[in-house]
Amino acid sequence: MFLPKKVLLKRLLRFLKEDVGQGDLTTALTIPPGKTVAAQVIAKESGIIAGVEEAQLFLESLGFKVETLVKDGAGISKDAIILKITGDARTLLSVERTLLNLLSRMSGIATQTRRILTKIQHAGYNTRIASTRKTAPGLSYFDKKAVMLGGGDTHRLHLDDLILIKDNHLKIVGNLNQAMEKVKNMVSFAKKVEIEVATKEAALKAAKGGVDIIMLDNFHPQHIRETIELLENKELRERILIEASGGITEANILEFAGTGVDIISLGELTHTTKALDISLDIQKPTKR
Amino acid sequence: MFLPKKVLLKRLLRFLKEDVGQGDLTTALTIPPGKTVAAQVIAKESGIIAGVEEAQLFLESLGFKVETLVKDGAGISKDAIILKITGDARTLLSVERTLLNLLSRMSGIATQTRRILTKIQHAGYNTRIASTRKTAPGLSYFDKKAVMLGGGDTHRLHLDDLILIKDNHLKIVGNLNQAMEKVKNMVSFAKKVEIEVATKEAALKAAKGGVDIIMLDNFHPQHIRETIELLENKELRERILIEASGGITEANILEFAGTGVDIISLGELTHTTKALDISLDIQKPTKR
Amino acid sequence: MFLPKKVLLKRLLRFLKEDVGQGDLTTALTIPPGKTVAAQVIAKESGIIAGVEEAQLFLESLGFKVETLVKDGAGISKDAIILKITGDARTLLSVERTLLNLLSRMSGIATQTRRILTKIQHAGYNTRIASTRKTAPGLSYFDKKAVMLGGGDTHRLHLDDLILIKDNHLKIVGNLNQAMEKVKNMVSFAKKVEIEVATKEAALKAAKGGVDIIMLDNFHPQHIRETIELLENKELRERILIEASGGITEANILEFAGTGVDIISLGELTHTTKALDISLDIQKPTKR
Amino acid sequence: MFLPKKVLLKRLLRFLKEDVGQGDLTTALTIPPGKTVAAQVIAKESGIIAGVEEAQLFLESLGFKVETLVKDGAGISKDAIILKITGDARTLLSVERTLLNLLSRMSGIATQTRRILTKIQHAGYNTRIASTRKTAPGLSYFDKKAVMLGGGDTHRLHLDDLILIKDNHLKIVGNLNQAMEKVKNMVSFAKKVEIEVATKEAALKAAKGGVDIIMLDNFHPQHIRETIELLENKELRERILIEASGGITEANILEFAGTGVDIISLGELTHTTKALDISLDIQKPTKR
Amino acid sequence: MFLPKKVLLKRLLRFLKEDVGQGDLTTALTIPPGKTVAAQVIAKESGIIAGVEEAQLFLESLGFKVETLVKDGAGISKDAIILKITGDARTLLSVERTLLNLLSRMSGIATQTRRILTKIQHAGYNTRIASTRKTAPGLSYFDKKAVMLGGGDTHRLHLDDLILIKDNHLKIVGNLNQAMEKVKNMVSFAKKVEIEVATKEAALKAAKGGVDIIMLDNFHPQHIRETIELLENKELRERILIEASGGITEANILEFAGTGVDIISLGELTHTTKALDISLDIQKPTKR
Amino acid sequence: MFLPKKVLLKRLLRFLKEDVGQGDLTTALTIPPGKTVAAQVIAKESGIIAGVEEAQLFLESLGFKVETLVKDGAGISKDAIILKITGDARTLLSVERTLLNLLSRMSGIATQTRRILTKIQHAGYNTRIASTRKTAPGLSYFDKKAVMLGGGDTHRLHLDDLILIKDNHLKIVGNLNQAMEKVKNMVSFAKKVEIEVATKEAALKAAKGGVDIIMLDNFHPQHIRETIELLENKELRERILIEASGGITEANILEFAGTGVDIISLGELTHTTKALDISLDIQKPTKR
Repeated sequence: MFLPKKVLLKRLLRFLKEDVGQGDLTTALTIPPGKTVAAQVIAKESGIIAGVEEAQLFLESLGFKVETLVKDGAGISKDAIILKITGDARTLLSVERTLLNLLSRMSGIATQTRRILTKIQHAGYNTRIASTRKTAPGLSYFDKKAVMLGGGDTHRLHLDDLILIKDNHLKIVGNLNQAMEKVKNMVSFAKKVEIEVATKEAALKAAKGGVDIIMLDNFHPQHIRETIELLENKELRERILIEASGGITEANILEFAGTGVDIISLGELTHTTKALDISLDIQKPTKR
Repeated sequence: MFLPKKVLLKRLLRFLKEDVGQGDLTTALTIPPGKTVAAQVIAKESGIIAGVEEAQLFLESLGFKVETLVKDGAGISKDAIILKITGDARTLLSVERTLLNLLSRMSGIATQTRRILTKIQHAGYNTRIASTRKTAPGLSYFDKKAVMLGGGDTHRLHLDDLILIKDNHLKIVGNLNQAMEKVKNMVSFAKKVEIEVATKEAALKAAKGGVDIIMLDNFHPQHIRETIELLENKELRERILIEASGGITEANILEFAGTGVDIISLGELTHTTKALDISLDIQKPTKR
Repeated sequence: MFLPKKVLLKRLLRFLKEDVGQGDLTTALTIPPGKTVAAQVIAKESGIIAGVEEAQLFLESLGFKVETLVKDGAGISKDAIILKITGDARTLLSVERTLLNLLSRMSGIATQTRRILTKIQHAGYNTRIASTRKTAPGLSYFDKKAVMLGGGDTHRLHLDDLILIKDNHLKIVGNLNQAMEKVKNMVSFAKKVEIEVATKEAALKAAKGGVDIIMLDNFHPQHIRETIELLENKELRERILIEASGGITEANILEFAGTGVDIISLGELTHTTKALDISLDIQKPTKR
Repeated sequence: MFLPKKVLLKRLLRFLKEDVGQGDLTTALTIPPGKTVAAQVIAKESGIIAGVEEAQLFLESLGFKVETLVKDGAGISKDAIILKITGDARTLLSVERTLLNLLSRMSGIATQTRRILTKIQHAGYNTRIASTRKTAPGLSYFDKKAVMLGGGDTHRLHLDDLILIKDNHLKIVGNLNQAMEKVKNMVSFAKKVEIEVATKEAALKAAKGGVDIIMLDNFHPQHIRETIELLENKELRERILIEASGGITEANILEFAGTGVDIISLGELTHTTKALDISLDIQKPTKR
Repeated sequence: MFLPKKVLLKRLLRFLKEDVGQGDLTTALTIPPGKTVAAQVIAKESGIIAGVEEAQLFLESLGFKVETLVKDGAGISKDAIILKITGDARTLLSVERTLLNLLSRMSGIATQTRRILTKIQHAGYNTRIASTRKTAPGLSYFDKKAVMLGGGDTHRLHLDDLILIKDNHLKIVGNLNQAMEKVKNMVSFAKKVEIEVATKEAALKAAKGGVDIIMLDNFHPQHIRETIELLENKELRERILIEASGGITEANILEFAGTGVDIISLGELTHTTKALDISLDIQKPTKR
Repeated sequence: MFLPKKVLLKRLLRFLKEDVGQGDLTTALTIPPGKTVAAQVIAKESGIIAGVEEAQLFLESLGFKVETLVKDGAGISKDAIILKITGDARTLLSVERTLLNLLSRMSGIATQTRRILTKIQHAGYNTRIASTRKTAPGLSYFDKKAVMLGGGDTHRLHLDDLILIKDNHLKIVGNLNQAMEKVKNMVSFAKKVEIEVATKEAALKAAKGGVDIIMLDNFHPQHIRETIELLENKELRERILIEASGGITEANILEFAGTGVDIISLGELTHTTKALDISLDIQKPTKR
């Protein structure tokens, strides 16, 4: 996920604009114009850092000199310095919260993603974990980039991404074969096609229908194993990716990782988040 | 927090725009134009609902007929129907995730806020709880409205709201009295003034300086009690509000609620959230 | 009122965009690209200058070198040089009017504010004067900042600022006590509460109800005096601010300033404005 | 000036958005949702009304039923009802000020324009009066439409409108003939060309150069008469329009109107404005 | 490609906004407000129609009653009526050109696409044709939708769509295998991977590397045949799609369609367009 | 057409934003951050270049060092280098297509315009050619600037430009004289007035009515000659411009140029375009 700076910046400034309203009154009343300060952004707990690129761009566009001490995706320990910043005191105080809100949300998501991934890897599996579209509203770009920095898969970025025929589509179309037929006739060659199924039989039908990915929705681990075995028996397993989804959490993930699925997707990577504790400390101010 | 519909709608459509990208391909490929469906938005777990007003406005603006079965701020049980929706099938499928992401985030925040508040009230305290500006980036309006519906206080909505002199301001100004002096001379009569202090002595100085609210930052509960006692002894307690902040969580909140502070503010109300599980079920489609 | 530059700039560029349309044709036809000029922004009459910060930011963002010779809020005499500018001739000619429109409106407002304030101070009163929300549409930020630079109070910046229960609210609620009750139960601790009253009795009721500010709407000066006396007699005066509003102009303001009110608000500070005469003079062009 | 409603509406909603911030708190706290009210917009003084089309569109887009009792450009007397409005109480209270600010600014401008125009007509002249680009920043559309409704000429709407070679252009180009030559070779046939001159001789040169309009900048009335006579003598008067500009105000306008110029332009039509006093009165609320 | 109406509308209104500027003066001066007219949108030449959905939405959002007589993607003959419209005369005249510009561009693209496709099909091939990202700036959505309605493939909608490693990427990475390796390790399971190659050998390497699609860039038809044969011999043909690109036009396309490639992409589908001649005829106006 | 850079840039970034979506994945996956490259923009065929100013501004705003080797409006031969660019590799690859799409569309339009103009000039005529409002939706600025660089006339830039009474206006007004009367009474002195006529008689009526320009719509060349003769006989020719429009193409233009009209307008200048083939070649990358 690479956005040219001008495009990324526009998204960041929208956050600032909401927070600042008609202006930072406290700063206007207490801090004289033209004062320069140095500051550090510091982790108050360990985790995986994400949002450094965004933070740097944001601050530099506001006129700050920024030194980054860690890279996006790196593990950091408590008290690690993430950024050193020098620049206008008034501006820094008025953007501090916007900056930290982004960094701590993205780092919180990356930290959780990495922790779950590590759990899977320590258990000896190489199942991928993926986020869903269950992000905070309007924050898909930032939430998914954080997942990626944590080692997870971004899955769909938009609705114009891979075709994913879900439960609710099938309820309207009425019939899995019909839906697959429609899609096959019209879909761009540039897209993969995925279908969500609720039974072993539907999974088999989907595999025969030629989809690229099958999502086993709310399957019990044992049920997943049987489905995979069925596909293997029909020699359909190899050219298809299997994604397990629904009711999978950090607590029970190893039961699913052990079934042989390729991908496990978890809504909680982005909808249930814990901000990483990060703060900004003003250093001794220097004369202009 | 009341926004005229046209203003609120603009914020909602921005969320949709990001998610939909160049269009919902799956829906375009599987669902014929002009199909009408009925659907229900259902709670998959109990909690406090928030975002109903937003959901209704969003859906109605997209041409749906909407019936709301619960009110914002109400407690709902598992399987409760929140909304009944009728309208264009293609549109509904393409906006479903945006709708649910907002509802489940807001409801998750309201649920957590109410749970903590109830804990305090069951312990026999009437301390208020307040959110901070630690929201998801750009979602301050929605996050704070959810806190309010859960029974919490919104605290500052922008930086142009009450004056809040924090640690980092004082580091630059150098001196609490000087900062209060500057503010008192220039601040609009329409604003309250709050100051963050780190010691009992600073709290006393602040109270003498005539601020409206004192924030005791990272004070131990015992320390808070002593500070309040000191202010009472000096007959300064009555006309001042005391806010405790820093390191307070759902787990330890009763220790702070018992100190006699007026307000406890918690970053985790908005920065560490668990989405309420809410889903949309398509009903039998009807012919147009 | 301090806005980070990037946020402020966006507001300024919107003005330019409207004026420039599909481009400055005269400049394109007469001025060769790449020509550099020097220019001065000069006051054609004396007054209080406001908008220098905005002008400087605007010009610098467009690539100009800018020297500011006076500070926002300073008194200037006729022929005073406000800014010295060097940069691209085409750009300067195409932004000249946008620049001057902002500077002369803001300075006009500041000048009027200061003149009225001075009148009050010369009469020996220390009553504050405040603007209202009667600004030019969409120019609240700039109009109120100009008032502030003139020495006035900004009053509410948005509708999310202090609670101000007005006449029209009461007509719907039906009852002052009921309105105050509702507000008291729900309002954030971070906000002040003001109520507009039309009679002495209502003022007393409001004071008893615990509001922070009482607005005496369209009261005769004598009537104001009696109301203040009543509150003093009831020992309610001290912790309440009194604002007089309605029908007060530069002509009759001393009658009101003499009544002992704390604040006088005047719509005309922002709705009836006289631009300060400011112009831009191109100096001898220099070769690139 | 006719804008399709959707385009006009976007400009109006921007005004509302600034004023409302994160929401109208007073209204949210005092007025229950779903309450319907009737209201009237009333003139508190006589004048020329402008902005009725905008007001109606704005209100209807917000869901109100609106009856307009006067037409844009009409003269109204004190206490005249301008609009009757029925609709949601919360919404009405939160948009009242935005509505009135636009109506009263536009009506103030139209009133002043008409008054000056009437003065000229009563003196027996048919000189046109025109506005300049000296509008409130970003309000060119509304300010110029108000001038037009008052009977004035809008003059340039953008910099992409007629070519107007001014003083500052000539300072850079160095030479009037050279500037006219450049323009003549390149200008679109769809545009008129105007040039600002400071002397009788320059006016003659401009007329010979074939421009469509000559602006006599800061000419004394006698000087204007002589210039017109010179052009008549050279048989150049007929196909050229003459505009007088600079230092002309309501007070001295008859001296200029009597000189035989075609157009007099006045910055004060839009930069020095007095809002017409207009208010909104809530009627008895009705149950929903 | 399905966009919820509110999202699509926003894009359409941007076109109108540019064209209308500060308002449609001709219409304002000649057509009285409140006049209703009927009109027809008519094809002045035969072709494939595209943009009907957009036209209908655009007009309905502006308050018109619209009847659509042909469907997007249908062939129409000269003089065919496409839309019947009833509504406000002023609005219709001010939006006519924006409406027709969109319809005639989209229909021109669809017509050209269909003509080329038909040529291929008549020659007995079933090769797909695809557009590229060489659209008019900012019109990717509309250009690609028109291609799709003509029967072509949209190919990438954004840069966040399938991975497409091109010539310029390889010049920087230095090495095809290295580029494929990097991508394979990091790419989301939801994306296909395509690589552009310049030689038969590179095509073989790419096929072995496991990409989904190989783009043969600027290959001679004979060269393409040999490459496909080589892949067949290595049993790599089946699971790979082959796209031919570069220097292919309507004139020489059959030479390429006969080579056995799966997809032929042509920049000219969207960068070299001929608008279909479509006009709007006002019918007899009716009284309001 | 001169736009201040900040205003122009905003339009350019909108194009990029659409193309880049949630980010350039290929580039993110293959190109390491911080890599610097040099590149050249090269013409693959001869023509007239347009868009250099836009390209330079776009690239410089993204942080590139840019050298321009040709000027807007210049003729270039195949293989000519247009720009030399140095800067961040990731950014360059992600903006390449947006850059080229603009340059090649604008240059294609300029090339076609110049070719037609040259044809007219070689035939010994000095008739002007003009574009219409039939541009790509939303690209009026860029399309018209390209026409101008090719030597054509931009004609109306907006609907707020010259008054142009067309066929559809007259159908509603009912009567040419009535329409002219209405316009004459109300139109700003700053605007020209043009009227579209379908017969010789109407042309005469229009000329008597005092319009500035007459558009002969769909006149046969012989018919045009007769109309001009008629106007000459009535001594009305001189002060009026005559524009021929409708059914005129590059193929038949000399028949029209020979009639003595002043301006010929052609929709195809902007609605039927052939992109000039321009590409970007990455040079050897250099270490950062």
